[in-house]
Amino acid sequence: MKPINVSEYEVLAQQKIEPGAWDYYQGGSDDEVTLRANRTAFERIRLRPRVLVNVETISMQTSVLGTPIAMPIMVAPTSSHCVAYPEGECATTRGTGAAGSLMIASCVSTRTLEEIAEEAQKTACPLWFQLYVFNDIQITEGLVRRAEQAGYRALVLTVDTPRLGKRERDLRNNVIIPPAPHRAANFAAGHPVFRPILTWETLAWLRGITHLPLLIKGVLTAEDALLAVQHGVDGIIVSNHGGRQLDGALASIEALPEVAEAVEGRCEIYVDGGIRRGTDVLKALALGARAVFIGRPTLWGLAVNGSEGVRDVLEILHAELELAMALSGRPTLASIDRSLVKLPSMAVL
Amino acid sequence: MKPINVSEYEVLAQQKIEPGAWDYYQGGSDDEVTLRANRTAFERIRLRPRVLVNVETISMQTSVLGTPIAMPIMVAPTSSHCVAYPEGECATTRGTGAAGSLMIASCVSTRTLEEIAEEAQKTACPLWFQLYVFNDIQITEGLVRRAEQAGYRALVLTVDTPRLGKRERDLRNNVIIPPAPHRAANFAAGHPVFRPILTWETLAWLRGITHLPLLIKGVLTAEDALLAVQHGVDGIIVSNHGGRQLDGALASIEALPEVAEAVEGRCEIYVDGGIRRGTDVLKALALGARAVFIGRPTLWGLAVNGSEGVRDVLEILHAELELAMALSGRPTLASIDRSLVKLPSMAVL
Amino acid sequence: MKPINVSEYEVLAQQKIEPGAWDYYQGGSDDEVTLRANRTAFERIRLRPRVLVNVETISMQTSVLGTPIAMPIMVAPTSSHCVAYPEGECATTRGTGAAGSLMIASCVSTRTLEEIAEEAQKTACPLWFQLYVFNDIQITEGLVRRAEQAGYRALVLTVDTPRLGKRERDLRNNVIIPPAPHRAANFAAGHPVFRPILTWETLAWLRGITHLPLLIKGVLTAEDALLAVQHGVDGIIVSNHGGRQLDGALASIEALPEVAEAVEGRCEIYVDGGIRRGTDVLKALALGARAVFIGRPTLWGLAVNGSEGVRDVLEILHAELELAMALSGRPTLASIDRSLVKLPSMAVL
Amino acid sequence: MKPINVSEYEVLAQQKIEPGAWDYYQGGSDDEVTLRANRTAFERIRLRPRVLVNVETISMQTSVLGTPIAMPIMVAPTSSHCVAYPEGECATTRGTGAAGSLMIASCVSTRTLEEIAEEAQKTACPLWFQLYVFNDIQITEGLVRRAEQAGYRALVLTVDTPRLGKRERDLRNNVIIPPAPHRAANFAAGHPVFRPILTWETLAWLRGITHLPLLIKGVLTAEDALLAVQHGVDGIIVSNHGGRQLDGALASIEALPEVAEAVEGRCEIYVDGGIRRGTDVLKALALGARAVFIGRPTLWGLAVNGSEGVRDVLEILHAELELAMALSGRPTLASIDRSLVKLPSMAVL
Repeated sequence: MKPINVSEYEVLAQQKIEPGAWDYYQGGSDDEVTLRANRTAFERIRLRPRVLVNVETISMQTSVLGTPIAMPIMVAPTSSHCVAYPEGECATTRGTGAAGSLMIASCVSTRTLEEIAEEAQKTACPLWFQLYVFNDIQITEGLVRRAEQAGYRALVLTVDTPRLGKRERDLRNNVIIPPAPHRAANFAAGHPVFRPILTWETLAWLRGITHLPLLIKGVLTAEDALLAVQHGVDGIIVSNHGGRQLDGALASIEALPEVAEAVEGRCEIYVDGGIRRGTDVLKALALGARAVFIGRPTLWGLAVNGSEGVRDVLEILHAELELAMALSGRPTLASIDRSLVKLPSMAVL
Repeated sequence: MKPINVSEYEVLAQQKIEPGAWDYYQGGSDDEVTLRANRTAFERIRLRPRVLVNVETISMQTSVLGTPIAMPIMVAPTSSHCVAYPEGECATTRGTGAAGSLMIASCVSTRTLEEIAEEAQKTACPLWFQLYVFNDIQITEGLVRRAEQAGYRALVLTVDTPRLGKRERDLRNNVIIPPAPHRAANFAAGHPVFRPILTWETLAWLRGITHLPLLIKGVLTAEDALLAVQHGVDGIIVSNHGGRQLDGALASIEALPEVAEAVEGRCEIYVDGGIRRGTDVLKALALGARAVFIGRPTLWGLAVNGSEGVRDVLEILHAELELAMALSGRPTLASIDRSLVKLPSMAVL
Repeated sequence: MKPINVSEYEVLAQQKIEPGAWDYYQGGSDDEVTLRANRTAFERIRLRPRVLVNVETISMQTSVLGTPIAMPIMVAPTSSHCVAYPEGECATTRGTGAAGSLMIASCVSTRTLEEIAEEAQKTACPLWFQLYVFNDIQITEGLVRRAEQAGYRALVLTVDTPRLGKRERDLRNNVIIPPAPHRAANFAAGHPVFRPILTWETLAWLRGITHLPLLIKGVLTAEDALLAVQHGVDGIIVSNHGGRQLDGALASIEALPEVAEAVEGRCEIYVDGGIRRGTDVLKALALGARAVFIGRPTLWGLAVNGSEGVRDVLEILHAELELAMALSGRPTLASIDRSLVKLPSMAVL
Repeated sequence: MKPINVSEYEVLAQQKIEPGAWDYYQGGSDDEVTLRANRTAFERIRLRPRVLVNVETISMQTSVLGTPIAMPIMVAPTSSHCVAYPEGECATTRGTGAAGSLMIASCVSTRTLEEIAEEAQKTACPLWFQLYVFNDIQITEGLVRRAEQAGYRALVLTVDTPRLGKRERDLRNNVIIPPAPHRAANFAAGHPVFRPILTWETLAWLRGITHLPLLIKGVLTAEDALLAVQHGVDGIIVSNHGGRQLDGALASIEALPEVAEAVEGRCEIYVDGGIRRGTDVLKALALGARAVFIGRPTLWGLAVNGSEGVRDVLEILHAELELAMALSGRPTLASIDRSLVKLPSMAVL
């Protein structure tokens, strides 16, 4: 029977993915406190639905940095899709486009960014390119040029990974990602080396070498959101990297309100981390996100059924969000505001 | 042995009802967060009993929209009683009347509203009629006329169901309610089709075509309570539809205080959702409800022992409320006020 | 091996007491929410110990209504001790006196109040007499006269039992207390009948017919504490009757602060409910109690080892309190104040 | 496989240590509420990481009372190391020095303080000496002189142990520490006798008889921290003795903020209790500690692999703290401030 929600995809995906890779995808850092908090924080937020609103037509089409998308739900960058499904990122982008959404291609993909971009055209999937900054600055600039060339519409600089988090499942499994015979296809060597020096100056440099819109991913504080605005970023993705970097960090939905308050509309704000239901999307929108990103659920869909699985996961969330908007009396994205949610008086458990 | 509380009826009822229908009755939407919250929210409210009050005589007789009832506990509308017990809603109304209470007949009943009204006379059970608004406005108006004709004393417009919630148990069980050979007896086709366009204008229209008192069921916010008052409703039922519509919505007892504060006595307020004990009723009254409705417990009583079971469930709650009033030093409904309860400082868990 | 704490007595006692009686002693009303809260509320209070205080000598001798006792821990009234141990209340009072404490004899005892008083002399156990008010006012006055005659030093009027709570364990076990061949020894009929009309006027009447000091037991609110002071009571016992009356009522330690604040020293304040450790006693003293009462633990000690068991339970608590006073830098009762505790910001869980 | 975190050392250590001694090391007092709170309190604190900070070089070298150490993580005094590993404290000090850290030698050691000091020179391990005050004041002064002579750099007066906490595991196991054939090597009799009279005057006396810097260990309140400053102590260790003394006392990390606020930099502040991760260290530093002490984890390392195990435990925490500093954008100790943490609004669970 076809899965009826995202969690059912999770169960099925585990049967398709080799245990070490499964742990890599599912795990967080240290004691996985933040990984769990990403979920539990959503569950503690209450919705205040309005009634007797005309919800015959629900409209959730929107645009992100000027690119129209069918729903405020997009695909977060995750690495090494070929481990989950042979076609890898090419299948993911086709499924994403078929659902009318946008994908951020990971720079640690198992298909080249050019292959992904070419495949994306089949379903008109808009693409953004996720960028790490590497020790060899040439490599970084090379990736930017290739992304520009291939038609990516924005660059997403991940800023929460000056080093890799301590992912103990991977240490125990002795996992290297991507595992052979897969390779980080964008790199001649088959794997990237991170650069520990990544600062606001790096951001300014990046800003200077490309005309693509620039986002930063991994902000969790009002302070950094303000700095980002001052540095002219076009968008901020509130994220704790799926609980895979600093354990104990704020759940991303806990951090969203302070970021939204600080930014005051001066750039677009997105959030990822723990979104598994349409009502989670609704809560994120109410707390100031223009749209959300989903990470692991896309991989579950991919592992279970390739591009169809990805599309289906997105469509499940689309349907759930549509229903949640109808049931909460918010037929348009503009009608979703802060009054829709009631927060616990304690931000953390 | 005769059940000594409502939960014992729940255990017995499960043995009487086919698993798919049981899931239909028991389940909520999505992850059933609100379904559980309806219970846990009651458990977090503390009572502040007074002592040395004369509680020899406990009086809980009251009236709702002018109709006298023996206790501030009434029967919420639930669908398809014939699935739980052959006589269906006719048995429920007899039991309700025998206990001195009032029943809201669901418009999705498995006996016609006329059959129910006729049977209700045997125990002088006052009836209100629950109304969905249907695509064919004629059907709606037809139901109103039939309810007027049959002696129903008020109309209860359900406003939290512009669409059906995502009830995953039912999706997995492939349940259609009512299951054959049962049918939605009020409808020629044997099943109703909901109308997605139901707005404050619809309410005004309904108000205009009947002289029956009008209530709306499904309000969870102060904002909507105020609008309801402005639209001249006679009563508001604070409800999240038993956790079956928008998952993550406020527990109904969490929403009651803000509704009561907004209404300031300008119409009657009731609440349903998670009431399983006399002390739950007491808490609801202290927080501003004139009376409460119980849904699933009535069905458990019905399944276990027909009209006698319904009556017994109501009488158990009557006895528990009477005892709770005595033990809290509140011998009359008028003596139950806000000082009887102490709320957690955090409205949600 | 000799039990090292009160909980070990609980485990041993269960092996000595017949299951129905065990349930009677251990159980609470309804869902036992308040029964559990009596314990969990203590666990949520934190202690703020002081250091480098001279704690060589710990002094916990005190007096209650002028009667000196060796520790601020006394024996609450509980019924039907002969069910737990053949000698019943006579053994309890001997053990209590041996520990230097005071006992409140229940009026529903299985030994007569005169027998208890006579036995009490063997260990110089001071006695107070717990009083219910009965339908036949003559019986009540008779008991008062007998208590005066027998040397009881105060009367404790239980005010939280206008009716018996719904104790579902007992309903299921079909328990009658005291079970045959035991009987309520103070009553010719062998059992008492409660009077539902017990008001502040009753208290005034009682005040008028005796010169014994008068306490009321079962107060949980500032409002009633104030009324009690105005009616000239000598002491208030903050209590929810061990979670056996109104389920959902405040834990007694939760109610203590508001009572203490309202009374402002105008009468003595005690508390019972959930005290199982010396640190619990310390918390209660810090929150305004002059002394505490323990109920079930005394019965456990009695069941396990008669008067020796009672004495040992009291001495365990004495030793634990002494240690807790030493470890918190509070060598005298006078040095125990509000600054010793840190309350959760939420009074209820 | 080599343990990858401190908890894995815990698992391995249990296989090396005899059950009674294991209970002695692992256990707390009474119901072990504070023992558990020491851990859960850390888990409820959220981190607010900053991004785009240059974290290429992480610097955590610091000094404590003028002594340079490689990391703000030191070894707390714990007793009887020979029970865990034959070489006992001599192995611990070698491992500590190898990791560039400092050890507080317990005065209840199973090797003499002189043996420990001699061994410490092999890895240049700086030592502080932990002191209890004993009935025979000569013994205390003798220990001070021996510590001065042997090159210990500071005295740490434990102030939370006027008596031993009620450690029920030990009572049940009938454990005497150190068990034969081990002995408290610093004492001719092979065991010490505590002095119950230890006051601020004792502290003044101690201050007067030695020129060594003086710290007190076991402070949990702002009041005592202020007194300590007024008495001229050089350092305060916020501690509840690993949950082994007053059960119900504040978790040490809960007490740290009020101590830091009261002290206002007038002496150095440290904390121990429940630190198992680099992120725990980071939280403690953010809340005002100059450095932290770890107790049980050192013993686990010692039991598993002698001095190498001790070094490895410290190096694991060093690596975790370095990573946590990098991932939170705090490359220096000076950059770690209060804004790094978000506390729950409720100080206790």
